[in-house]
Amino acid sequence: MNITIIGAGNMARGIATRALAGGHTVHITAKDPAKASQLAEELRAQPAGAAVRAGDDSAVDTADIVVLAVPYTAAKELAAAYGARLSGRTLVDISNPVDASLDALLVAPGTSAAEEIARASAPGTHVVKAFNTTFATTLVAGRVDDTPLDVFIAGDDEAAREQVAELVASGGLHAVDVGALKHARELEGFQLLHMALQIRDGGYGWASTIKLITP
Amino acid sequence: MNITIIGAGNMARGIATRALAGGHTVHITAKDPAKASQLAEELRAQPAGAAVRAGDDSAVDTADIVVLAVPYTAAKELAAAYGARLSGRTLVDISNPVDASLDALLVAPGTSAAEEIARASAPGTHVVKAFNTTFATTLVAGRVDDTPLDVFIAGDDEAAREQVAELVASGGLHAVDVGALKHARELEGFQLLHMALQIRDGGYGWASTIKLITP
Repeated sequence: MNITIIGAGNMARGIATRALAGGHTVHITAKDPAKASQLAEELRAQPAGAAVRAGDDSAVDTADIVVLAVPYTAAKELAAAYGARLSGRTLVDISNPVDASLDALLVAPGTSAAEEIARASAPGTHVVKAFNTTFATTLVAGRVDDTPLDVFIAGDDEAAREQVAELVASGGLHAVDVGALKHARELEGFQLLHMALQIRDGGYGWASTIKLITP
Repeated sequence: MNITIIGAGNMARGIATRALAGGHTVHITAKDPAKASQLAEELRAQPAGAAVRAGDDSAVDTADIVVLAVPYTAAKELAAAYGARLSGRTLVDISNPVDASLDALLVAPGTSAAEEIARASAPGTHVVKAFNTTFATTLVAGRVDDTPLDVFIAGDDEAAREQVAELVASGGLHAVDVGALKHARELEGFQLLHMALQIRDGGYGWASTIKLITP
């Protein structure tokens, strides 16, 4: 698949790493083109790194999946700004709308960042929530304590969810489909707790992952 | 500690099993006294099973921790009915306020079963959310795939949270303190997804557990 990642930060690095491992072509575009080029150059050192490109945002128009690897507010603005260019496309929201103290969500009760981004998007944009519970460094490794990461996926379009699940699985991770986009509420909520646990005394230092353990 | 469990169903069995393993005294009381006696008799076959008693609800008045091992609506009614008898005591709410289709929560956005139970309780009752993400059979075993269960704990009284964490740890489980009682919202929310995943095609059959994996 053609995966276009908007953003060139740590989460872009993590998701690009897994997408390359899965054999996909990755386009990176960012507000600061130098940052996008620098990340692409770094990723080229990886196995399958030849399939990464940096450039302008024209790759959005040929992407199978567009990933908004930016914070919530920027993601919502981008979804609105791209408008009809994203119609019919799978748009992945990875954001966590949390306050600076990591004690509360910035979105109102009864909604989620993913739903707000969907509301800001043009009709026919298939918004999928994914990768919001996986920290950047764990994505680069793909594993924590030798366990493949769970990636929880929510979205109203089943084919779009399946497409993201394919990206996840091809990159060596475990996809967990939780259904409709409204369930992004519960994914974002639990991740608030998970984030808060990173910075406490004896916290996990952004190195833990949420996993459903089965017998 | 003296642990009084109200209810004699599967969750009562699971929590009693861990409490006995932790060396605590367990009192079981239930609407149907025969059911309480039967569960106590069954538990007596366990190691440390000598420390279990069934009887009337007078054990509520001498308990260090009272566990409401009943569904949400019954738990709220019991909290209100016991009123001042629970004042100053640690009251554990384990409930999951989910609809029959496991697709939505029964409590309004911006609250939780635990907060509603606290509102129904007499002043000074220290309501703690715990054990809502651990299925009954996993509690009996204490582990899934040889991994000790995480038990997420939320409550506004720090000493009460620590008391529940002590119960959890003594029973061989891993306590994860997530802070204020309002964070029960996120625990109940994520458990809605976890429950829905049990009954799907290829579902986990009530045998999985939510774990934060660390390096």
